[in-house]
Amino acid sequence: MSQAQIGVYGLGTMGSALALNMAGHGFDVAVTNRETDWIAPFLAEAGNLAQRLHPHDTLESFVSGLKTPRVILFMIPSGAPLDAIIDAISPLLSPGDTVIDGGNADFHETRRRAADLAAQDLHFVGLGVSGGELGARTGPSMMMGGSDHSWHQLAPILRRIAAQYQGTPCVAHLGPDGAGHFVKTVHNGIEYADMQVIAEIYSLLRNGAAMTPGEIGALFAAWDKGPLKSYLVEITGELLGYTDSETGHPLVDVIKDAAGQKGTGRWTVIEALRMGQSASMIEAAVGARGWSSEKGTRQTAETILGGALGAIGATPEVLAEAFMAARILCYAQGFRILAAASDEYDWTLDFAEIARIWRAGCIIRSALLDDIAGAFAGDLPHGQLILAPEFARILARTLPALRQVVCSAVHGGHAVPALSAGLAWYDSMRQGHGSANIIQAQRDFFGHHGFERLGQSGKHHGPWWD
Amino acid sequence: MSQAQIGVYGLGTMGSALALNMAGHGFDVAVTNRETDWIAPFLAEAGNLAQRLHPHDTLESFVSGLKTPRVILFMIPSGAPLDAIIDAISPLLSPGDTVIDGGNADFHETRRRAADLAAQDLHFVGLGVSGGELGARTGPSMMMGGSDHSWHQLAPILRRIAAQYQGTPCVAHLGPDGAGHFVKTVHNGIEYADMQVIAEIYSLLRNGAAMTPGEIGALFAAWDKGPLKSYLVEITGELLGYTDSETGHPLVDVIKDAAGQKGTGRWTVIEALRMGQSASMIEAAVGARGWSSEKGTRQTAETILGGALGAIGATPEVLAEAFMAARILCYAQGFRILAAASDEYDWTLDFAEIARIWRAGCIIRSALLDDIAGAFAGDLPHGQLILAPEFARILARTLPALRQVVCSAVHGGHAVPALSAGLAWYDSMRQGHGSANIIQAQRDFFGHHGFERLGQSGKHHGPWWD
Repeated sequence: MSQAQIGVYGLGTMGSALALNMAGHGFDVAVTNRETDWIAPFLAEAGNLAQRLHPHDTLESFVSGLKTPRVILFMIPSGAPLDAIIDAISPLLSPGDTVIDGGNADFHETRRRAADLAAQDLHFVGLGVSGGELGARTGPSMMMGGSDHSWHQLAPILRRIAAQYQGTPCVAHLGPDGAGHFVKTVHNGIEYADMQVIAEIYSLLRNGAAMTPGEIGALFAAWDKGPLKSYLVEITGELLGYTDSETGHPLVDVIKDAAGQKGTGRWTVIEALRMGQSASMIEAAVGARGWSSEKGTRQTAETILGGALGAIGATPEVLAEAFMAARILCYAQGFRILAAASDEYDWTLDFAEIARIWRAGCIIRSALLDDIAGAFAGDLPHGQLILAPEFARILARTLPALRQVVCSAVHGGHAVPALSAGLAWYDSMRQGHGSANIIQAQRDFFGHHGFERLGQSGKHHGPWWD
Repeated sequence: MSQAQIGVYGLGTMGSALALNMAGHGFDVAVTNRETDWIAPFLAEAGNLAQRLHPHDTLESFVSGLKTPRVILFMIPSGAPLDAIIDAISPLLSPGDTVIDGGNADFHETRRRAADLAAQDLHFVGLGVSGGELGARTGPSMMMGGSDHSWHQLAPILRRIAAQYQGTPCVAHLGPDGAGHFVKTVHNGIEYADMQVIAEIYSLLRNGAAMTPGEIGALFAAWDKGPLKSYLVEITGELLGYTDSETGHPLVDVIKDAAGQKGTGRWTVIEALRMGQSASMIEAAVGARGWSSEKGTRQTAETILGGALGAIGATPEVLAEAFMAARILCYAQGFRILAAASDEYDWTLDFAEIARIWRAGCIIRSALLDDIAGAFAGDLPHGQLILAPEFARILARTLPALRQVVCSAVHGGHAVPALSAGLAWYDSMRQGHGSANIIQAQRDFFGHHGFERLGQSGKHHGPWWD
């Protein structure tokens, strides 16, 4: 039996796409699935790539079909199913083998599994994979957390199958155990926020500038040729051009405005909060999705509270500038969460590297990420992206547009949770003297918590306690 | 030895205040503390109330000094210390005894402890206590979670020592096990948001209307005589009048603008997120406190991004209207979190009752809570406070002011995270047709997640998959 260089367990959408990607790059891949009747159809669809795909019906056969030290990629639902299969496969493995979870796992669970397996001399890797099915098939962006040993095993394969940005593979060993999954979680949080910004801008153009979906789509397509270039801008431009065959209306007009979510945006926010951080644009995006699911309530509310929306006095050029400001703020907040986790877990994350591997393959890929990678490699006061010289300049230039757009939206009754959250954070961070002195005074007044005096150390209580 | 009706373990600030409150109302209270050398000084300060306070040096003595079935209130730090003392005391107790945690506990832990103790036929109560030291001493608002048996034991004592609102004690049995602590947690979340709104309004007046702290204090004192009347408005009016004896400056001007937090605001937000909710004004408040702690970064940022603030064109009357709108939105979001938990844990929370017991004693007490209690007892479309006829009217009247204030703030560079978050939520909820159709289209485009069509059930995929 030929010895496969890697095994893929799980032939759902992502697993089969990755297996085909690997086979297409000349790797021999052992494949299997819990429901064994998925295997034959998968091979049938693989065409000549099937030569590189080696099917197995049992775990034992699958394991023995692998070169040692073995590398096994699990592409199955996270949680209990993964724990069950790890329990089943561990007795069949040998010290030095690497088990990879390529799903969207909670990084705490990944850390736990890594520790459990390390006790058996097995290596556990948490691999964040972004790019959807198409990305998995043709080149995803991948964020790896695990040991150097596992990276040594995996790198030759992952570098070949990853998205390539000007010849550089979009995959990196970011840190131990849960680091990769955490970075993927934050990637998804940024994705939520970027999507919410796009939805808000769309809504302003649709409801405040009387543009049709097709016209807005053309605008996004034009933006995709400039500094706002991104995968999300590109696909938004594209999807806005479709007509619904059933009604003849623009397709987006017949899609229900109730967004689903799988949870990763929420996780990002919860982890951020646990570390004393706030990624307020991601919070706004998570919140907006939740509120969108209350369509019945919103429809009733409209009849009671009125839903008339005013005109937006901003031109598309101004909106583009506002969009750029919002995108920068969104990335900046995301990287602050990464920095907090890096400190908390001693991961020494390389932010420039993370930005680099996000330049292609992943959902949030954009022209800006190249500049962000550059900023992290340069002078960065307090580690803050918004203080990098290049970004400070762009923000100074684009903030007036963001202010104008938010002001116009607020005046006209348009909901802009993410745009306003980004702006509020920016304005909070650039005030050397904020208003939390009032909060400290109140907390001491009713709770005797004490406050610090400016320019001094030590806790004081107010004269109201005398 | 006289048999005390209740025992208080823990003679820190809150425990001693509650014990004195009980003694003052004629109850015999057994008292003890881990550090037994705190007991004598406590008695010495109690004056003639010491007649009702029965000191004990050991757990055994403390337990035997109580009437049966026993009622024991723990006022000690939550977490491990509480678990340790519960372990130590349980063997000394009898079936039917009630143990109360009067601290700010994580309600999940309270549920766990209640289940553990139930297995030993012991009753565990999670009691949320609000009002600070003064409230504890003279009349707190209390939120009880536990069994009917425990309520039967506790009610005679708690009703006497609670704050009274027009003769009605501000204490209620809100549900089983963790219900009381959860309601307290949300109370604290609302407290954070209300404080943040006040801080933002203060900041606008200070930096955008050139008012002195003293002038702003007089304004708050005037507001405290009208519909904005609240404990937080009252104390803000008061503290703004103090002068720093050291420098002669207004005291608030020498207090460092770096807010601390004990965690309950953060917990509220995390629990809300776990349940798929978003209390965005509380999130904004938690975020703002976190960002305030980064004073060094903010000072640097001001030199790079500039901190000049424009004039606020809003009069104090307009600010008062905006404040009212924000307060309503803040309570509305808090009650939504309570509703979500009530569903999730089958607590059947009585929202009118919660509003009633918050009318006096607690930190968030305000004139508005009486109206809120009325609203929950009346016609409430979709259970939404903002749709109650009275509140919908007030919101319709005050929203223009909130828009004007946020617009003016945003234009002038003032940070208004909570005010803008409240407005964004309001504008999201009153739109029968929102922009999440774009999000759904994008999610289907890159992730094949599927969307619903308006007016139909069933999942569809877009033609981009054809």
